[in-house]
Amino acid sequence: MSRVYLDWNATTPLRPEARAAMIEAMDVIGNPSSVHAEGRAAKMLMERSRERIAASLGAEGADVVFTSGTTEAAAMMLAGQGLQCAPVEHEAVKEWCDPSLPVDSGGIISVPDPARAAVQLANSETGVIQTLPEGLAVSDLTQAFGKIPFSFNWLGAISGLISAHKLGGPKGIGALILKKGTDIEARLRGGGQEQGRRAGTENLIGIAGFAAAAEAAQRDLEAGLWDDVADRRDRLEARLTGVATDAIIVGKDSKRLPNTTCLLTSGWKGETQVMQMDLAGFAVSAGSACSSGKIRASGTLQAMGFDDAQAQAAIRISISPDLDDDQMNRFADAWESAYSRWRERNG
Amino acid sequence: MSRVYLDWNATTPLRPEARAAMIEAMDVIGNPSSVHAEGRAAKMLMERSRERIAASLGAEGADVVFTSGTTEAAAMMLAGQGLQCAPVEHEAVKEWCDPSLPVDSGGIISVPDPARAAVQLANSETGVIQTLPEGLAVSDLTQAFGKIPFSFNWLGAISGLISAHKLGGPKGIGALILKKGTDIEARLRGGGQEQGRRAGTENLIGIAGFAAAAEAAQRDLEAGLWDDVADRRDRLEARLTGVATDAIIVGKDSKRLPNTTCLLTSGWKGETQVMQMDLAGFAVSAGSACSSGKIRASGTLQAMGFDDAQAQAAIRISISPDLDDDQMNRFADAWESAYSRWRERNG
Repeated sequence: MSRVYLDWNATTPLRPEARAAMIEAMDVIGNPSSVHAEGRAAKMLMERSRERIAASLGAEGADVVFTSGTTEAAAMMLAGQGLQCAPVEHEAVKEWCDPSLPVDSGGIISVPDPARAAVQLANSETGVIQTLPEGLAVSDLTQAFGKIPFSFNWLGAISGLISAHKLGGPKGIGALILKKGTDIEARLRGGGQEQGRRAGTENLIGIAGFAAAAEAAQRDLEAGLWDDVADRRDRLEARLTGVATDAIIVGKDSKRLPNTTCLLTSGWKGETQVMQMDLAGFAVSAGSACSSGKIRASGTLQAMGFDDAQAQAAIRISISPDLDDDQMNRFADAWESAYSRWRERNG
Repeated sequence: MSRVYLDWNATTPLRPEARAAMIEAMDVIGNPSSVHAEGRAAKMLMERSRERIAASLGAEGADVVFTSGTTEAAAMMLAGQGLQCAPVEHEAVKEWCDPSLPVDSGGIISVPDPARAAVQLANSETGVIQTLPEGLAVSDLTQAFGKIPFSFNWLGAISGLISAHKLGGPKGIGALILKKGTDIEARLRGGGQEQGRRAGTENLIGIAGFAAAAEAAQRDLEAGLWDDVADRRDRLEARLTGVATDAIIVGKDSKRLPNTTCLLTSGWKGETQVMQMDLAGFAVSAGSACSSGKIRASGTLQAMGFDDAQAQAAIRISISPDLDDDQMNRFADAWESAYSRWRERNG
């Protein structure tokens, strides 16, 4: 029986369009900074990719500054700025902010001073979607980009953070999106690349893959490929909570990403569930992947009012648009039987 | 007539081994930080790649911290440290150092306090190779790695900077090499990757390509593929300076990379030569590519005692091991005829 990957929010498989674009880019010899024909060809591929990403994001006219991913884009935009954020932000954002913004039990963040705040568009663990206030300084768009329709230029944010590998592009490439006129200090220096905002020879093959993936993700969204995802996810949630009547779907009453379920079963450690599901052939996660083995309670769930023990009892199921009913049912069967065994042992 | 690429020090074409490894890595689904089987497979590919790079570099036992390239590795190791360096270092190193170390007319750097200094192993513009002092804090190995045989563990440096795209790997991936026990503060934070030294989901496809390229480069070196390169380069230099008797080979009397020629013709702007050669079908460069269109005199040449006008009159020819005599002669013909035209116009 083949494995089922239900950890789409951690990273996605590479899209065929991205693969093809990357293989094509492998034949481009030059350094985009070189002035000769080989350099200009590399530069042209890079600039065309930049435009395709801007168009896919609805960020026409904004600056797309390529980075090694959201983590670097966050550091560029946030380090030393002293902005406020909520404890539900990804660690890469929280690292540079004062995580004092209030969060309600539905995961919704209050933002008294948008010009001094960073607010994610969608949460990686619960999928909860925020309505962004006008004039927001920074928004982490990583989880939302490619999963829900939106246009950067209409979001109200001055800057955005995106990453290729959450929408079918390669890992290790992302971008900082800046409304025209927004200035930042370069963190990587010693080269004129990216208009002096980010020195270093660009990840050209990754950039080509990013552009192709972003465009394909946008096309999928417009073609309605994600329309059934929320429906399938809702059926899965109904099935699981029908059996595990003590389990909670975190953020259920909020607007959420169509593919994300945060399932909390008090007393049953998320880490244990992840391992049991892994052995049974299913990849799910407990919290964000990026804590890298560190087993600690989710700051997101604690901010929503769950205590430490509860926050450790959650798993994230994040499905892909091409998950089929059979795969979904096999996962539900496996989880339910593990749940029943756990229930028996724990009265 | 097909073009001839003589700008190997700016960036190299992707090696077939790197291409194959990258295409294979495209099928790896997981995030190396995820604990499930897909994540562990990604992690295993990453760690195997890390070991292969360490072995190719003679850095067994040292830590290989993946970065987006030398520029990022330099910033991680140098920012805020106040180390000394020479003006011949790449801008990405000079940016963070006090460029006060003396350089002689042969390009050789004096290093009074190695523990507080950064010294390149080879210069990108002239190819001049340094003998590194024991206990050196940082060495930029970018241009030397894959072109001359050396072992990081025997170099005398505590840390090294490397980049994949100078030895046939992809652009946008590099590493900081640290002798065991060397500590650094993370610049990218908010994730436990790279033992907490560099947060952010890793560029897995790039890493796989880097490892394959490093191994292949090492194999080529050992197989003697570069043995004839210096000989061919010397013949080219003899031919060019035989016709242009006023032209100088910068650093000629120093130990140099086998593939690099810095050719200075007083009064004839390097930028002009680059454009003329480009039109004639040959890619060469004036200074390092990374100044990105900025036309300014080379700090390297000025440090070696050339004045501003002279420093602007140099081109870099950096050949690949597979350049053949026919290509070399075609380039020499083209350059010599451009030189003659320039001479005629300028008496």
